[in-house]
Amino acid sequence: MAGSELTNIKSPRVKAARRLTKRAFRDRDRSFLAEGPQAVREALTLDGVVVELFATAEAELRHADIVAAATAAGAPVFRASGEVMAELAQTVTPQGLLAVCRFVHVPLETAVTADARLVAVLAHVRDPGNAGTVLRTADAAGADSVVFTDASVDPYNGKCVRASAGSLFHLPVSTGVPVSRAVERLKESGLRVLAADGAGDRTLDDVDLSAPTAWVFGNEAWGLPEEILRLTDEVVRVPIYGRAESLNLATAAAVCLYASARSQRIGSVLG
Amino acid sequence: MAGSELTNIKSPRVKAARRLTKRAFRDRDRSFLAEGPQAVREALTLDGVVVELFATAEAELRHADIVAAATAAGAPVFRASGEVMAELAQTVTPQGLLAVCRFVHVPLETAVTADARLVAVLAHVRDPGNAGTVLRTADAAGADSVVFTDASVDPYNGKCVRASAGSLFHLPVSTGVPVSRAVERLKESGLRVLAADGAGDRTLDDVDLSAPTAWVFGNEAWGLPEEILRLTDEVVRVPIYGRAESLNLATAAAVCLYASARSQRIGSVLG
Repeated sequence: MAGSELTNIKSPRVKAARRLTKRAFRDRDRSFLAEGPQAVREALTLDGVVVELFATAEAELRHADIVAAATAAGAPVFRASGEVMAELAQTVTPQGLLAVCRFVHVPLETAVTADARLVAVLAHVRDPGNAGTVLRTADAAGADSVVFTDASVDPYNGKCVRASAGSLFHLPVSTGVPVSRAVERLKESGLRVLAADGAGDRTLDDVDLSAPTAWVFGNEAWGLPEEILRLTDEVVRVPIYGRAESLNLATAAAVCLYASARSQRIGSVLG
Repeated sequence: MAGSELTNIKSPRVKAARRLTKRAFRDRDRSFLAEGPQAVREALTLDGVVVELFATAEAELRHADIVAAATAAGAPVFRASGEVMAELAQTVTPQGLLAVCRFVHVPLETAVTADARLVAVLAHVRDPGNAGTVLRTADAAGADSVVFTDASVDPYNGKCVRASAGSLFHLPVSTGVPVSRAVERLKESGLRVLAADGAGDRTLDDVDLSAPTAWVFGNEAWGLPEEILRLTDEVVRVPIYGRAESLNLATAAAVCLYASARSQRIGSVLG
């Protein structure tokens, strides 16, 4: 524990962390906030990511293992009053642990290589909750990496980090990539690039998904623009069997990513 | 258009609609609010569901077809000022149309019959956004009906209605059903009852889903309690191929429901 309890929300340390809720400051400091025991625990599995940890007295007792791991990793731990934690946390009921973390994203060339078999591309995804959920789902489906294009939300947005439920720390993530560059790299790396869009001629059930595949997911409201659809190898829609007009973005992504995961595994078993 | 524009948020008509944001009043009046052009349009496809419609002057022009349909259906249309609409609507940017609707749910015996091939049961789902998303996904996957148990959120909660994106008006929904009664009815109707839970011994890939199936989905945080798992025919988990601990409820439900839809259709083709 470094020093006494932080009780002043105007102290320089609290203010320095607090401003990381804004993208401009995150980009300047190349740092972001990870909130809650699950995210902090995952962040600590990566070397040098956790810069400092804030913990309430209660959280320190409840999550002594996490505090010990932070200390062992050389990250200073600051005890924070409930008021300070409420100032830093972006949730209604803060869980008492919050880490300042260094950016974890990697260059596109590291995220996407010839070994990749399943990649998710978030193009024009603007809702951070949706983006984080797709990241979590891509991780669950065994994706090799996730690419955020330059028109998508910031993966370090607090809501995105929370919705990812730790997955931001699990698999290589690239961000700020122009979509054309992402598609080019995916194709060069031997992946078939499929756009998930309601405008697709073929449905998920009609496409062979056993080969290495990248899925491009678009905007919540208006899908993918024509110029992106043209870049991809094929536009595929999730079949609608009932009367719903569409699926929401995160559920459509889940259906696509799991269909790929399943086909690739069945393909592997048969092959 | 009935009468002049409503500008007073304290007028009895506005207050009577506004209180439907609370469950106790919804249950008393057996009515709820449906917000936005999509929901109102879908509500108007059902006879006698729309009781009255509130529309801003702008929405009246933009959605003249919807206003005309409401009038033709005999529902009074009230022009509402922006302030009144903001008072009634539960969204940050109201879309200018809001209908008071009669309850649309049906008895369990109507929702679940021997013809049913795919049913979603929401047991202990507490987040209305998740519940509405599962309802929308069940509709998209061609489910015959959706059952909300008595321990789940109210399907008429504003967030649930919005997240369902009109699906609340598309397929039979039952609500307030004890889970044991739901499972009994499903089994009597010839459906196999599968609990979706991370504790499952078998994964989605290992289970034959071509027969009529009901999926039981549990709580966002803690899944399904042991006493519900015991009632079902089998506990099945969505396989996690990567490092994520779990999927969120709505994405897990999407993967399960679409796996069933796909198996049943491939089964039909082969049969």
